[in-house]
Amino acid sequence: MRALYWNGRNLEFESAYRTPVADGQTALVKVHLAGICSTDLQIFKGYMGFTGVPGHEFVGSVDDGPQELIGKRVVGEINFACGRCDSCARGLGRHCPNRTVMGILNADGAFAECVSVPLANLHVVPESVSDEEAVFTEPLAAAFEILEQIQINPGDEILVLGDGKLGNLCAQALRLASAHVTIVGKHEHNLRLIKQAGVRTIPLEDWRPKQFDIVVEATGSASGLELALSAARPRGTLVLKSTIAGNHRVSLAPIVINEINVIGSRCGLFPPALDALREKRISVTPFIEKIYPLHDGIEAVSHAARTGTRKILLEP
Amino acid sequence: MRALYWNGRNLEFESAYRTPVADGQTALVKVHLAGICSTDLQIFKGYMGFTGVPGHEFVGSVDDGPQELIGKRVVGEINFACGRCDSCARGLGRHCPNRTVMGILNADGAFAECVSVPLANLHVVPESVSDEEAVFTEPLAAAFEILEQIQINPGDEILVLGDGKLGNLCAQALRLASAHVTIVGKHEHNLRLIKQAGVRTIPLEDWRPKQFDIVVEATGSASGLELALSAARPRGTLVLKSTIAGNHRVSLAPIVINEINVIGSRCGLFPPALDALREKRISVTPFIEKIYPLHDGIEAVSHAARTGTRKILLEP
Repeated sequence: MRALYWNGRNLEFESAYRTPVADGQTALVKVHLAGICSTDLQIFKGYMGFTGVPGHEFVGSVDDGPQELIGKRVVGEINFACGRCDSCARGLGRHCPNRTVMGILNADGAFAECVSVPLANLHVVPESVSDEEAVFTEPLAAAFEILEQIQINPGDEILVLGDGKLGNLCAQALRLASAHVTIVGKHEHNLRLIKQAGVRTIPLEDWRPKQFDIVVEATGSASGLELALSAARPRGTLVLKSTIAGNHRVSLAPIVINEINVIGSRCGLFPPALDALREKRISVTPFIEKIYPLHDGIEAVSHAARTGTRKILLEP
Repeated sequence: MRALYWNGRNLEFESAYRTPVADGQTALVKVHLAGICSTDLQIFKGYMGFTGVPGHEFVGSVDDGPQELIGKRVVGEINFACGRCDSCARGLGRHCPNRTVMGILNADGAFAECVSVPLANLHVVPESVSDEEAVFTEPLAAAFEILEQIQINPGDEILVLGDGKLGNLCAQALRLASAHVTIVGKHEHNLRLIKQAGVRTIPLEDWRPKQFDIVVEATGSASGLELALSAARPRGTLVLKSTIAGNHRVSLAPIVINEINVIGSRCGLFPPALDALREKRISVTPFIEKIYPLHDGIEAVSHAARTGTRKILLEP
């Protein structure tokens, strides 16, 4: 099959990559659309030491597997858990120490014609949700994860730092829980789209620092982290959404001095995200910048790496 | 009066420093004993840009102030709050944005014959608590602050990293809330004393990494932070107790990947600490390494800066 392959140094287009097969535990999914995520860009800088087919945001249809799933449109959770350890027993397969992770850790991903996905990870996409919407399920689930981790009180003032792909989805997800969500970013076009989705927006250059009860760091940069720390009130909450490869030079003293509660937040459950897409409570398609054919994947990745780029999709 | 003075570059002994006066809002406290804290050592590296008389751990007796307090033995909370802002109204004077902080921020401290303390900050020391015990009230309150900030469930496995002054007090405070407290450190003598206080101890060189529900970072070093992050289980809690001046090179990706809850923890309320000292539930006097006269303060600070040193006290 055709696939993009990351060998640890270069991303290559392969026209005859081995096609995965469905076994009793997995389905073979024909990829309709796959999204390029900032984590993929981090992988191309060495994050996780991954080699293989990248890509963990996808929508497709089941090509081989259990009879009742054949032809069904599906999305898939990306952590492939062992199902037998303590974390799995506690319902936290996303933290299974034995897990592989699609396109990130010891498992090929979705920048390919087909991808193999454990049956337990599949979710059927409702009819009313288009492929262009469903491909956002994984990052939207990551945004909803915040609501699972922290308590939001009425009246809490919430700041999302970063108007990129993840910042947008976090702001929209939080907007469902609070009327007081502000997003600060650098990209006029993105901010205009996010404002249309019902979130208060402020361009970074117009922003006068003030302190918020809850701050979500979604800039993906170390400088964003310092800004986020300074924007959290004493005893406030800072949610870290970006995984950044390598070490950063930061002062952590403000965490201690202001007794900030810093919460790392990663992948989330798919059902709340699929529900929100079905109910059209989250706007996603305006945030698609361009759809590339898979064989232009290397160009697509370059495009995705430009600052302020909205979602770049691959169509195998 | 005699005092140690930090001018931003050097610590000097002054024999004729201006003696503070009691006004209607403050008492003049004659210092019996003052403790040298790691934060003081950070100040001498530039932390907070402080100049003045350092020192924020003390026990003394009221020399001038309201009649009913004259001669009483007292300890004092170190954040001098404005009493009029939102933080103060919420009972969080420790986070008052207008505060000064004894020996740390715009207020002279206790490495002197006398110190001026707002009346609202004073606590009378119970008769049964000696000066040598009472001088630990401030750092012990900081240790008890952890119990105010996080929920400890029965069965939670707790790790304290660092067998220094603060690590010891944190381990003993947590031991009152959980039977499963382990402290890991480098200093055989300290570990032996902490073990006598009822905490499980492991020398760092014998430690086989495992994951804990709650980890308290009290090493005061950036490398300790990395170790602490690796010792927290996914969705576990990491309490940061050390304030470290300057920037550190750290990877924060594990916070996000493992969805760790990082909680900064600083000063605490004095009453629980005084209660614990009165009830002899915390062992402190074995952790006094040496008492120096004030005029040997510069030598005392050098001694306190040596790794593994227990509490160094100054006696004016």
